[in-house]
This record gives sequence, structure tokens and C-alpha cells, in this order.
Amino acid sequence: MELSETPIPIWYVGQHLPTPAETLVEQTVNAAVANNYDFVTTYLTNENLQTRIKDIISKAAAAGDDHPDVESLSADEVRIFPGSYTTQIIAYTSPWIELDSEDPLVAEVSKSVLLHEIAYASYCGITRLVVLGPSRPQNASQFSEVLNSALAISPFMQLLVQLPIVEEDYDPKQATESALKNQLSSWDTWNTIRTVCSYNHNVTIALQISTRLPPAHVLSRWFTEPVRLLHISSAVFVLNAKGYPVLSQDHQTKLLSKYMKIQPTPYIVLADTLNSLCVPSPSASRALASGSPRRDDPLSFISYIRHLQKNQPPLDVFEKVGQGYQDYLQSPLQPLADNLESLTYEVFERDPVKYDQYEEAIRLALLDRDPDTPLAVAVVGAGRGPLVQRALNAEASSGRKIVMYAIEKNPNAFVTLQKRNKESWGGRVTLVKTDMRVWSPPTPIDILISELLGSFGDNELSPECLDGAQRVLNKNGGITIPQSYTAHFTPIMAPKIHAELKLRKEPDAQETPYVVLLHAVDILAQDQYIHNAWEFSHPLQKTDFSGNGHNVRRSKATFKIPYRGVVHGIAGYFESVLYGNVELSTRPDTMPTKSADMTSWFPIYFPLKTPLYVPDSSEMDVTFWRETDQRKVWYEWLAEAYLRLDNDQRIRLGLSELHSSKQNGCLM
Amino acid sequence: MELSETPIPIWYVGQHLPTPAETLVEQTVNAAVANNYDFVTTYLTNENLQTRIKDIISKAAAAGDDHPDVESLSADEVRIFPGSYTTQIIAYTSPWIELDSEDPLVAEVSKSVLLHEIAYASYCGITRLVVLGPSRPQNASQFSEVLNSALAISPFMQLLVQLPIVEEDYDPKQATESALKNQLSSWDTWNTIRTVCSYNHNVTIALQISTRLPPAHVLSRWFTEPVRLLHISSAVFVLNAKGYPVLSQDHQTKLLSKYMKIQPTPYIVLADTLNSLCVPSPSASRALASGSPRRDDPLSFISYIRHLQKNQPPLDVFEKVGQGYQDYLQSPLQPLADNLESLTYEVFERDPVKYDQYEEAIRLALLDRDPDTPLAVAVVGAGRGPLVQRALNAEASSGRKIVMYAIEKNPNAFVTLQKRNKESWGGRVTLVKTDMRVWSPPTPIDILISELLGSFGDNELSPECLDGAQRVLNKNGGITIPQSYTAHFTPIMAPKIHAELKLRKEPDAQETPYVVLLHAVDILAQDQYIHNAWEFSHPLQKTDFSGNGHNVRRSKATFKIPYRGVVHGIAGYFESVLYGNVELSTRPDTMPTKSADMTSWFPIYFPLKTPLYVPDSSEMDVTFWRETDQRKVWYEWLAEAYLRLDNDQRIRLGLSELHSSKQNGCLM
Ligand SMILES: C[S@@+](CC[C@H](N)C(=O)[O-])C[C@H]1O[C@@H](n2cnc3c(N)ncnc32)[C@H](O)[C@@H]1O
Ligand SMILES: C[S@@+](CC[C@H](N)C(=O)[O-])C[C@H]1O[C@@H](n2cnc3c(N)ncnc32)[C@H](O)[C@@H]1O
Repeated sequence: MELSETPIPIWYVGQHLPTPAETLVEQTVNAAVANNYDFVTTYLTNENLQTRIKDIISKAAAAGDDHPDVESLSADEVRIFPGSYTTQIIAYTSPWIELDSEDPLVAEVSKSVLLHEIAYASYCGITRLVVLGPSRPQNASQFSEVLNSALAISPFMQLLVQLPIVEEDYDPKQATESALKNQLSSWDTWNTIRTVCSYNHNVTIALQISTRLPPAHVLSRWFTEPVRLLHISSAVFVLNAKGYPVLSQDHQTKLLSKYMKIQPTPYIVLADTLNSLCVPSPSASRALASGSPRRDDPLSFISYIRHLQKNQPPLDVFEKVGQGYQDYLQSPLQPLADNLESLTYEVFERDPVKYDQYEEAIRLALLDRDPDTPLAVAVVGAGRGPLVQRALNAEASSGRKIVMYAIEKNPNAFVTLQKRNKESWGGRVTLVKTDMRVWSPPTPIDILISELLGSFGDNELSPECLDGAQRVLNKNGGITIPQSYTAHFTPIMAPKIHAELKLRKEPDAQETPYVVLLHAVDILAQDQYIHNAWEFSHPLQKTDFSGNGHNVRRSKATFKIPYRGVVHGIAGYFESVLYGNVELSTRPDTMPTKSADMTSWFPIYFPLKTPLYVPDSSEMDVTFWRETDQRKVWYEWLAEAYLRLDNDQRIRLGLSELHSSKQNGCLM
Repeated sequence: MELSETPIPIWYVGQHLPTPAETLVEQTVNAAVANNYDFVTTYLTNENLQTRIKDIISKAAAAGDDHPDVESLSADEVRIFPGSYTTQIIAYTSPWIELDSEDPLVAEVSKSVLLHEIAYASYCGITRLVVLGPSRPQNASQFSEVLNSALAISPFMQLLVQLPIVEEDYDPKQATESALKNQLSSWDTWNTIRTVCSYNHNVTIALQISTRLPPAHVLSRWFTEPVRLLHISSAVFVLNAKGYPVLSQDHQTKLLSKYMKIQPTPYIVLADTLNSLCVPSPSASRALASGSPRRDDPLSFISYIRHLQKNQPPLDVFEKVGQGYQDYLQSPLQPLADNLESLTYEVFERDPVKYDQYEEAIRLALLDRDPDTPLAVAVVGAGRGPLVQRALNAEASSGRKIVMYAIEKNPNAFVTLQKRNKESWGGRVTLVKTDMRVWSPPTPIDILISELLGSFGDNELSPECLDGAQRVLNKNGGITIPQSYTAHFTPIMAPKIHAELKLRKEPDAQETPYVVLLHAVDILAQDQYIHNAWEFSHPLQKTDFSGNGHNVRRSKATFKIPYRGVVHGIAGYFESVLYGNVELSTRPDTMPTKSADMTSWFPIYFPLKTPLYVPDSSEMDVTFWRETDQRKVWYEWLAEAYLRLDNDQRIRLGLSELHSSKQNGCLM
């Protein structure tokens, strides 16, 4: 895979035209486009409206009337009129309205103005409207209720709530624990807004970028949210030694490069470019002092952003393979109950990492054996045969002799196996079309190879299949590859996935695990802790497999959560020991060392029906059960939130229902 | 209403037969019935089962097997066999099973035993099974998961979880604040169980009564829960001076008389009656010392309980009127949009208190007027005419002269008005069949009487109707009765109502207010605080009623919550000033002084879709909105939970969605 193939990403960049007295006309937009912008942003109304509203408020206040009538907008109060160019405009609502005012009169009149502006913008064909966020965080719920009723005006209007990335500027030198926690207060306001608005897809964020970036946990928090616009003032730029405005290294890598991967890609809006607020760096100050010119003219900002756009770092393997799959929910496969299609096998086979690991594991297993006796090797669940090929490769590289069997119950895949045996393997592989649980080989098998692993390890019923197959093993030292596998989990914040699941009508949509390339999510546990829940290893010292009780598991773990957040669900991963020290892992922390760049599996996601809010310094207990009856295997999960006080006391804060995937369990 | 009419309540009392070696046979049950019991309770299994299970566990432990097979029950292990008498048995599961054991082997085997016992009990036709609650509160979720899977075995099996009313005995002399809080730990365990089991109706409580009763907040907490059995040991009784076992005054009034009003009525189970554990009172000790006999023979306990049963205090007005209505959810009336039926009017008219208050208000209003000018008085929304009659009574008692109008838009009720006018009022009332908002009287009206009040005051659109009618008032001092009304609310715990709403399929079942005689509920706010939200008063100094914006309201209140609980919804009440100091109130605290025994209105209940758990020393902010558009009026409500720390900091714990009854709003 060539990492350099990365195409130039598509960035939409707009110019913010704050308050020109005149009306916005087609020429204004054309001029911006000529200057390499894609669109413009500006206020919908002018000061005539403000004057009228001030008047209404003062008259009503004098009359003791809390609910004066507010007429809709008139021609001399607006700055935009319908026209084809309005599609290239993102409008801002009047910045002086105060939806969250403590004065009921001001709040009520502000609401009327907002509703009029939305209705008018919608009439003009504008579909994105920026609304300044509440200025009083304690009144965020009041603000949100108004926003929620505003959503009813037009199903096509996207309301972008403008919020600062941090409420107060962050000084890393004064980063006390409580200062670090307060960095999330602006996010808290957003959380209130979207909760009150029931995760409505039409409420998104216009994020105002600060000069000094907030700490990592704040940056990763916003990354999970529907940020649709990055509002960047020229004040965020610094003048470099040559006099050009540039963004700090952190702004480039931790902010722009990262946030421009949010789906859909946010717009960038450059503000205050006409009268630059850009501050010289120390080296720039010296250069300026010695007479060299400032070069932060209006066009320098957009040129710089376009330059960054062209020079984005290349995509990593997961970004390439995962294009379009980020946060996309898939139902887990049931390769035991269903028969997979050729295309599905083809997707597996595209990832060399898994097969390389298997080949290495088989090679080491062969080398550990007596070189003189030929070994019986079987791939059970051979699919289209990639592991058969790898076993044969390992035979060659190890210099051992093997007798090869391939078992597959999917009659369609079996056709491919037959074809390959004839064309590539010279007919030397014994193919058997059967369920491995009833297969009777002519000789005991020394090495039983399988790949029946799901995103949570055991969720595609590898334990049940291998229990049924282990009869065939040579009692004298027969082994399985993999030798064992473990399931892992951690609670995560995943607002995007939650919003998606909220729209689903199926009653059990929230009680089903999903396979999903987790992207806009935040691991909330301290040090990104992921809990190793349970293990299955093979073969078992057991011969009676009539019940399945021995494949039941339970695991409870406590996760310390340093910074407030919302738990929307539990992320699951797996690890597997194939042989010796050859392993597979999908855990973000151990994958790089155990099976770097392996893309065969995405994580699994277990939703919570109702998200649980967790404050700073809280703890979450998560319990998982692997349950079984005579026909099915399923999972149950439960989350309990606690607060850990300074005196070490633990207070319960909340408790989810018990979730169960029994309705969608895996058939044995 | 004669309060002495109270019939003897129906109490089912059972005898607990702990562990007789023998099998329970029909004669055992017959003997108990002959002794005045209604049923017996006993363990389903005997020590043979325990011996077998111990054996299985020790063998499996030795073999390192966590999941040994456990065969179902055999004939020599059970104490009950199918028979017609099993309907008179409540069985207890084996007391030695430990579903919440920390040892996975013990937990797993215990689960198998429980499932076998439930299946066998179900086979025997037993429908109530008592399961001992978890002995380790921290493992309550593990216990609950097992219970939840046990529920799947039989849809007709009720599992009664036996829990102590308090975990530790309560000593009122050592009632520190933290001791008071810990009194709820047994309830906490129950809360985990029923949350994990999704409020399943088949999981209920067998409450073990303690010798010393817990404080009031614990008693009122259990009262809200599905307590189906009161387990009372002879140790809870005291010997009185005559040597008889009796219950303390508190046990009689705060426990039995109260809890026996839970719906359905709990069973009483008397335990340890064969070898009395009853402790003599000080006076009894003296009597015993001077040679008088103990009389706590086995039958003394049931005789005493039957005596109490016959001597229960009489029902109060609400208990009589409300029979069968407790916690029963009704949709609010829409007397403006719909036409009420005669029977509905008849129910209103049965409550004299409301009409007495109106008559008194009208009388005072008449007395405040110039005695020489006849007054124009109108009842708008006269229904079947009771307020017309009361106005005529007030005319007589005040000695003033009135000209009487009655306006009603319901054509059917109008027929009754016509009949009454002819038969009782001598045709002196001018009847007009019209909407009051378009009525034009021949002369200005001096006193405009209406009763358009709903359980939340303004929720049946009294404001909108009276706005429309106030044109008819005499500009010179015309008044309305009522003069004003206010809405009131407080968050409550209401698990029974929540469980009921959870079963409803309509998508907006949780976003509709309900009229309901609140019974099994707990006001969680400190000092039972109820917030006065907003007021409407008439007439308004306003003539242009084209918009309805002036009838919009918003109110936010903070409720301090001293003891942990779950908020399931918000209770609403109203007060109204009819005239001067004549008022109506449905608030539990002010009703006794303002309008005692008024049963015309039940409270209103606004559900929360997801209950919010609130810990000790928490706070809840509740915001209510009265919203309106051109066609409808509706409410929105939102709850936010906070913890108040010792340093006075407030930490957010959770936030409900915004609830809105717009879909079910009142049509104007
Ligand atoms: C995840 S695919 C792996 C295929 C192939 N070994 C690979 O690694 O690309 C699992 C395969 O096992 C097969 N399989 C699952 N359960 C089986 C069973 N009980 N007996 C035989 N084949 C089974 C499925 O049909 C499927 O082809
Ligand atoms: C709650 S009942 C009260 C009836 C009676 N006054 C009593 O107290 O028993 C309200 C009555 O007002 C009538 N009503 C409601 N809105 C009305 C309107 N806009 N015009 C006329 N009648 C109305 C209804 O039909 C109903 O009979």
C-alpha cells in the first residue's frame, strides 16, 4: 500500500464579512470566490432591526408588557435577498439577541427575532445559519428550549451554534487539576444544547478557535462532536519571521489536520482578515523592528490555508481502508449460521497482516515438532483457502512435511476450494464439505487451524465451534491455532453513533452490538484504560460437551474517569495468541506492537439505550455477561456511574438498564 | 359523607413454616386455615438438595471446573408436590443459594439451582416465589442479572425479593445525618434490582419488618414500591402487661395501616410463631416476675393481627372517592375542544366543597357592591348549571339583586340548562348557547363567573377563554371569579406510574401530562417543597388579543433533595383566588386550610422518559414552559440533577431530554 497516494483533501473555506453597511450582493460573493474563497459568511440583518427591537423592548418595559408583538423583518432591516448566490452564503443571526437573558421581556423578544430570522433565511434559500451560543452557561437550558422550537420552522435549516473551543483562555503553566476540568465548560454548554434538542441532526457547532489551544482532552472531546464550522480569526495567526501570517504547529497538527477529518468535513471561516489582528512572533518582531514589512494583507490568510490544504500529512492505513466506514454501523457477521459471499471473503483476504501472522504462527508450530514425522494439519472453516495456502507456505519455509486437510461447511466457498486444489495445490489437500463439529478425519490432527474470530473475539462462536472440533485432535500433543483469545472493553463517548441509533425504529436497535470503525469517539477512562474481560483457550481438558455452560463468562471492571463526559456505549476489542508470541490485536494500544496495521477487524460497539452523564472524577462500573442457552449465544451489559469524593467515598449517580442482545443472539 | 361507613379491609395473612423435615401436604394447609390463616409459606426444597449441591461444588472446585452440570430437582429433594392446595402456598427458594457470590463457581451453581426451583414451582402451580435478596449490596447488579434471566422461565411467576426494611437496625438516638442517609441502603439494592429488570411487573418485594422502625423518609420510600408481602417475625412483637404479643403503636399506624393501603394489598406473613421470639415490655417483665403467665402461644399472633384488621382507622374523603383511582392515569379533559358528557358533569357536581367556595366568593363579591344597583352576573361555561344555582343562592343570602346570564357552548349540556331554567329558576336566567369568546351581552357584565380550571390551573385553557370573554366586562369595575390562579410543581418518585407508562406503546406516552390521584409516590424535595410556577389573573389591562404570546410562561426552580431517590416525573397542582380570601387549592400542604376535602381535581403528572437517579444531598432544577402557537397550548419540561458538595460546589449529574406535549396539546 502506497501511503503517498493521498489525494489533496477538499476544504471549503469562507470569508467572514462582519458588518458592511451595505446589502450583500452577487458581486460580493464573486469577489470572494475570485480571491480563492468558496463562500462568504455574514449577518442576516442590519442595525435598523436592532433599533426597532430596542424600541419595542423599552416601550414594552415601560408598559409592563412581557410579550409585545414583534413584526417580521422588513426590507430595510435585512442584508441578504433571495438570489442564486445565497447557496454560497452561511448567514449569522443578529449577534445582539439574547435568548438566555434573565429578563423575560428580552428573552421573549429575542426568541421572536430568532424565529423571524430563521423563517426569512429559509425563504432566501439559505440552509445554514450560525446562532451565537448562550452567554450565560447556567441558562443553557433556556437557550436550548428556544433553539429546539426554532428547529420546527424548517426541516432543511441547519443551525450552527457558535461556541468557543474553551470558555477561558488556557494557560498550560497554570494547569491545575481544577483548571484542566474547567476547560470543558464550553463543551458542557454544548452538551446541554444537544441533549435538550434530542441529538437533532440539524443542530451542529460553529467552533471558535482560540489563540492558545486547550489541552488534549478538550481537543479530543470536540473531535467527537458535530463541528461543522471552524471560525478562525486572524488573531489566531502569528506573523513569522518573513512577515507572513501562519498558524502554530499545534494549530496545524492538533487542530486543523485532525478536525478536518470530522465527517462531514467542517467549513473553515476566516474572520478579521481585512484588518489583521495577527500578532508578530518574537523573531517577526525583531525583523519588523529592523524594517522588514508585514505581509498579513487580506489575501495572505486564504493563501496560507490553501497551502496547508495541499500539504496535509498522508493518510494512514486505517484512514485509507476505512474511507466511508468511519462510525458506520454494521451488524456482526454470523459465519456459522449464514453462508458468506465471495466478496466478503475477498475483503478479508485483502489484509495481508492477519495472514502473515498466521503463516508465522504455523511455521513456528511446525518447527517445534519432530522433523521426521509428517504432521496432520487441518484448516477448519477454510473459506476460499487463504489459510490453506499459508499453511503450505509454512511447510515449505520450515522444511517440515504435512498432510493437509481443509474443512468448510459453506458449499459455495467449497467450490473455490476445489478449484484451487486442482489448479494451485496439485490436488494434495483433502477437502471435506462438512460442519467441523461432526467431521471425522482418518487420522488424528496435530495442528487444527481456524479463524472464527469476531470483533469481540468469541462473538462469532469460535468457542462453540472449536469445542465441537477438538475431538479430532491428536490426544498426544495436538494443538489449535489460535491457542487462545480474549475480549476487551472500555466505555466511550460516541455522540455521532448515538444520534444515528436514536433515529432507528427497530425496538432492539439499542440492544445489538455493532461492528464499527470507531472514529468520532472519545475513550473516557483514565490513561485510555481498556479492560481484559475473559479468555477462551483450546483445547479444553474436557470431553463431555453436551451443555454449553462452560462457555458462559462474566466480567466486571471499574473505569476511573478523570474528566466529565457522556458515556454512550462500550467499545469492544480482542486479542488472540495464535502460537507462542505471535499474536493478533485490535486494541488501539497493543495493535501497533502485536499486529500493526491489521485492518481485518473493526471494533465492536455495545450501545447504551440512555447515555449516562459522568462528572469529573467519576467512576464507571461496567459488567459484561456472555450468556448461552441450547440454541444461542448472546451478551448482556450494564453500566453504573459513581462519583469518587475527596474522602474516597463512592456515591452512586446512575445505573443503566440491563441490555441484552438475546433477540439478536448468534445461533449455534 | 359518613366516614364511619368504612368496611373491614381484606387482609391475607399467612403462616411461615420454616423447615419442618416433612413434605408439605394438604393437611398442613388445612390446619393453618383452621387457625384463621389464609395461606402458608415455606421452603420449596429440603436439605437433600443442599447436600447434593455442596457435593457438586466441592467436586467441581477440585477439578477446576467453573460450570458443572446441575441436574434438575428430584422427588426426595422437594417439599411440595402438585395439588389443589398449592394455590394457597407462597414458596421460598432455597435460602442457602448465593446468586451474588464472589466465587464464580458458587454463583453459577446457585443460578442453576434457582432456575430449577422456578421451573419446578411453576410446574406445581405455584405463582409466587420468594427469593432472598443479595447479601452483598455491592453485587446487587450480578444478583439482578440472574433474576432477570429467571423471569424468562415463566410469564406467570411472580418473584418476590426478600429485603430488610433497613439493612442495619435504626437507633433514633444516634440519628446523625449520615446514619439517616444509610437507612436507604436496602432500598438502594432494590432500586438496582428493578432497574436491571426494567421495572418488570413480576419482580416485587417481600419486605422484612424490623423491631425498630426506620425513620419517616425510609417508610415513605417503601410505600412507593411494589411491596407484595410483609414478613413479620414474632420478634417484632412485644409482650404487653397482660402477657399478650402486640405491635408497637408505630408498627400499627406508620407501618401496617399505611402499607396495607399499597395496591394490590400486600400479604402479611407471620414467622417464628411456633417458638415465640417476642420480648416482654418493661411492664410485662414486672407482671411476669410477679407470676402472671405469658400468652404468646402460636395462635396469639394471628388473633392479634385479625383484631387489628377489624379495627383499622376509617378512610378519609380521598380514600373513599379515590377507590380504584389511586395512581390510575387519565388524560386531561379538553372541555374547550370536546363536549363533556352528562356523567362527567355529575362527577364534578358530587363534590360540594368547590361549589361552597364559589358561592361564598360570589356572596362576598356581591356584598362589596353598591346595594342599590342590580348587577349583571354571568356564568360562562355553565355546564349543567351548578354555578348558576350557587350564584342565585348567593343573591338570596347577600340580599343583592342580580340579572343572571348563563353561557354554554356544549349543546347537550344546554338542554339541561333549559330544563332547569324552566323547572327551578322560573325562567329568570338568560341562557345563551355560544362560545364565550364571541358572546355579546345586551349590557356590560359586572361579575363574570367561570370554572375552566384544570389540574395544573391553566391547562384547560382558562386564560385563553377568559381573554376572549373579558370584552363583556363592565369597564367600570367589572370583575372575574376566579380572580387569578397559579400552577405549582415538584419532582416526585413514582415507580408504579413509571412501570405502567413503560408498557405503553404510543410513542408520546411519556410526553403527555396525566391527571392522576397520586398515591404510591414520594415527594423528594426537602420539606416537601412545592414551587409556585406562574400566575394568570383577570381581567388583563389589554384590548388587543390577536396573538397569544402574553399567555406564554416559563418557570425554573431548584429543589434540594436531602435523601437519594429516583425522579420519575413532576407532580403539578394549582391554587386559585376566587374572590378576596376565598381560595381553592389542590396542593397537599395548603389544601387543608384553603379548601379542605375538595376532591374535584386530582393532581397532574408530567413523566420523565428516563428516570433520573439523585444521590443524597443533591439538587434538581426543573424548568417548565407554557407554550402556544396560533392553534394550541402545550407544556415543555426539563429536569437537571446536580450534586451539592460540602464546599458548596454544584456538579452536574444528569439532564433529561426536553419533554413536550405539543403532539397532545390543547386546541384553542
Ligand atoms: C471468518 S471465515 C475465515 C475464512 C478463512 N479461513 C480466512 O481466514 O479467510 C470463517 C469460515 O469458517 C466457516 N465456518 C464457520 N463455522 C463452521 C463450522 N462449524 N464448520 C465448518 N465451517 C465453518 C465459515 O463458513 C467461513 O468460511
Ligand atoms: C369544567 S366545566 C364547568 C361546568 C360548571 N360550571 C361546573 O362548575 O360544574 C367547563 C364548562 O365550560 C364550557 N366551556 C369551555 N370553554 C367554553 C367556551 N369557550 N365557551 C363556552 N363554554 C365553554 C364547557 O363546555 C364546560 O361545560
